Amino acid sequence: MTFNTALYTDLYQLAMGQAYYLKGKHQVEASFDYFYRKAPFDGGYVLFCGLEDALEWLEQVSFSEEDLDYLLQEGFNPGFVDYLRNFRFTGTVQSVAEGEVVFPFAPIMTVTGPVVECQIVETFLLNTLNFQSLIATKASRIRYISGKDRTLAEFGLRRAQGYAGLQASRAAFIGGFDATSNVLAGKTFGIPVTGTMAHAYVQSYDDELTAFRDFAETHPDNCVLLVDTYNTLESGIPNAITIAHELEQKGKRLIGIRLDSGDLAYLSKMARKMLDDAGLSYVKIAASNQLDEHVIRSLKEQQTAIDIYGVGTNLVVGHENAALDGVYKLCNFEGEPRIKISENLKKMNFPGEKQVYRYYNGKQEYMADAITFASLEAPEGMAHPFEPHKRMPLDPARAKPLLHPVMKDGKRLTGARGVREIAAAATENLKHLPVEHKRFDFPHVYKVGLSRQIEELRNNLKAEKLKMIK
Amino acid sequence: MTFNTALYTDLYQLAMGQAYYLKGKHQVEASFDYFYRKAPFDGGYVLFCGLEDALEWLEQVSFSEEDLDYLLQEGFNPGFVDYLRNFRFTGTVQSVAEGEVVFPFAPIMTVTGPVVECQIVETFLLNTLNFQSLIATKASRIRYISGKDRTLAEFGLRRAQGYAGLQASRAAFIGGFDATSNVLAGKTFGIPVTGTMAHAYVQSYDDELTAFRDFAETHPDNCVLLVDTYNTLESGIPNAITIAHELEQKGKRLIGIRLDSGDLAYLSKMARKMLDDAGLSYVKIAASNQLDEHVIRSLKEQQTAIDIYGVGTNLVVGHENAALDGVYKLCNFEGEPRIKISENLKKMNFPGEKQVYRYYNGKQEYMADAITFASLEAPEGMAHPFEPHKRMPLDPARAKPLLHPVMKDGKRLTGARGVREIAAAATENLKHLPVEHKRFDFPHVYKVGLSRQIEELRNNLKAEKLKMIK
Repeated sequence: MTFNTALYTDLYQLAMGQAYYLKGKHQVEASFDYFYRKAPFDGGYVLFCGLEDALEWLEQVSFSEEDLDYLLQEGFNPGFVDYLRNFRFTGTVQSVAEGEVVFPFAPIMTVTGPVVECQIVETFLLNTLNFQSLIATKASRIRYISGKDRTLAEFGLRRAQGYAGLQASRAAFIGGFDATSNVLAGKTFGIPVTGTMAHAYVQSYDDELTAFRDFAETHPDNCVLLVDTYNTLESGIPNAITIAHELEQKGKRLIGIRLDSGDLAYLSKMARKMLDDAGLSYVKIAASNQLDEHVIRSLKEQQTAIDIYGVGTNLVVGHENAALDGVYKLCNFEGEPRIKISENLKKMNFPGEKQVYRYYNGKQEYMADAITFASLEAPEGMAHPFEPHKRMPLDPARAKPLLHPVMKDGKRLTGARGVREIAAAATENLKHLPVEHKRFDFPHVYKVGLSRQIEELRNNLKAEKLKMIK
Repeated sequence: MTFNTALYTDLYQLAMGQAYYLKGKHQVEASFDYFYRKAPFDGGYVLFCGLEDALEWLEQVSFSEEDLDYLLQEGFNPGFVDYLRNFRFTGTVQSVAEGEVVFPFAPIMTVTGPVVECQIVETFLLNTLNFQSLIATKASRIRYISGKDRTLAEFGLRRAQGYAGLQASRAAFIGGFDATSNVLAGKTFGIPVTGTMAHAYVQSYDDELTAFRDFAETHPDNCVLLVDTYNTLESGIPNAITIAHELEQKGKRLIGIRLDSGDLAYLSKMARKMLDDAGLSYVKIAASNQLDEHVIRSLKEQQTAIDIYGVGTNLVVGHENAALDGVYKLCNFEGEPRIKISENLKKMNFPGEKQVYRYYNGKQEYMADAITFASLEAPEGMAHPFEPHKRMPLDPARAKPLLHPVMKDGKRLTGARGVREIAAAATENLKHLPVEHKRFDFPHVYKVGLSRQIEELRNNLKAEKLKMIK
């Protein structure tokens, strides 16, 4: 199965492409903004993720002869299909860096190029950026509540949404996880892999102790024992303690035990005491079973002794949103700024080619983002995008641009960034986000606003369009 | 990106594999059951989907030299890695047919083979069967409430979870959708593709009417116009009517209009009236915008005039569950039935190799499923799996087995089934499911029970294991 085909798109992109082509407008330059409207998980931010995959795809995407035959069969115009034979993405991409914190309504990426190209690539860009950003954001929330001293392992592949499992493991690592159970992700992205054993392994033996002993013998340096197959406190932990002492005889150490059912708070405290009493304070306790940031928060409140959290389903599917609402909106066509009208200001886009400036406070924390035209400097003030009476002065000396050129004429301007590098950048970036925006309950709304010039253009274009309708 | 590698698994499968290998137990025969515990969406059933992909993967899966090098680097035992060089799945699979309706706790698939093989393939099987069954089930709910005379189009690729978009389109079609916007899915599975235009197309013109006219000219036989870019009732629909009349002059017909915002109930009724008043009763109305089975139910209650529903995000991510809780549990090892003990009977599995018999009522409707040993005939009664005092007599003359051999010695026993064939089977199967199990609110619980023999074995094994712990 290859996804490196321009057919991984919505049919309407090609239908519009045909209309542009037959009207001789396919080479007209257009710009589209990628942004989202609502942070997932009732949270205050999104951790932007998926850019590397997007750029790699843009550089490689094309139609095969088989793809073109298929389009002819589907009734597409032969001239248009012939034009697609040499289809490549030849445009320009400005983007926020992968691993940066981004906020509602501010452009995260701007794609500029021949309109047909920009339309055909829309679907893949939304697909990969929406999903990976969703999962990286979820992971960052779990890291936030767990604290930096806990180990976080992503165990989600079996419940991940099909092939998305690979991208989920990547995004989870960028969002702050330490390791994944997904071996293909480990190899593909060079990230740590981790795993213990399943209940089936213990069940395959007549008794748990022999199962543990055989596993320890065959994994002397990385043995973690799953202790809940029969009875955690009466069988699993006592047997694990026996094995730990046997390993000590050979100069080895049991790495940990894993709890996968029951009351994790109670069991982990009992386990810690039993291990400590047996002189095994170095043996770590891992816990899994339907964890997410809220369960971990509760476990921490109860001062449990869990060292390693294994998080699966809720992380890799982005429960309970499962989708980020990112959109890709036309903002410029043939050199003219464009707008979509709506009764609801929030459904309108910001016209023209833009830059986003991020303002820092005295503690180098993120304070506000102002959207202005790409040709302008950082503004000295901004207006709320939908409640124009709310205005805020800004200090341009404390501003940095967020959108940077990453692709020109269809070629990347910078080398590929590895997943570890992006993850490290994400961790650093999140430090600059004040905790008020990270908290789970009613996070403080981060201020994103418009420069006077953007506001004026939007209002003028709206008035013009409304006049046209009447 | 290739997913046809045995590395698309959890690390612990390989860790357990190494333990079995080094203890000389890797060729021991084991059996695992695939089943789920809770129907998604608070519904009453699951539509089983993903079998073809699973079988195809099982036939092809192997490790590349690069994969093996990676495992060596990760510290796996060289002897074990060498054994993996010739790894193939050589086992047997019994399965319910794809597109069949399945219920909680009854085995849907049984995989039998050398234990290491069965473990390594577990993750992919769960990944693909869980996800595709989730989406097919969601799609079947949307079809149920929409009725068979409405057209259902899946538009989800941009919000699908990354690469899962391809599998989502497949599963949606099997669950009862008529078409997808996903062009790659159309080509890969031979299913109908559909699409209209985006707001960007209309915005790229100075005026909506010219945009519509150009689109109609370049798509004279399949023109659907998006009417909400500026103002649905004052601009979009009047302009669409003008274009419909222009098309009539050329002997063509406008296929439809699409509503994508605002109050779909109100707007669709107004649109129907405006179109009818203009002599365009043949022009269909399509609607999209965050639809799901509940919104469609409300739209139908309001007697709207929508002919085509375009459903995206909520379908392709399986909102609001996003994961099916399917599991894969050891039930036999080295010829002996196996069990996992739990305080909670629901967390225990049913030991031994099993068959599921489905009983029909006099109207050929699905009435109950009984789980018994594979070697036994359909039972004459069954017990509730967790409340053993609840018993039910059954008529074996009305029973049919659900699990059939589909793979032997790693080779498929039947030819590949196309997606259209599976979708037709699913539609037929769903007709046999009484409406009480399909309704959204508190669906009637379908009866799944155990034969006396299974019940006895479970109780005996449990007593034996508990004795061992004490």
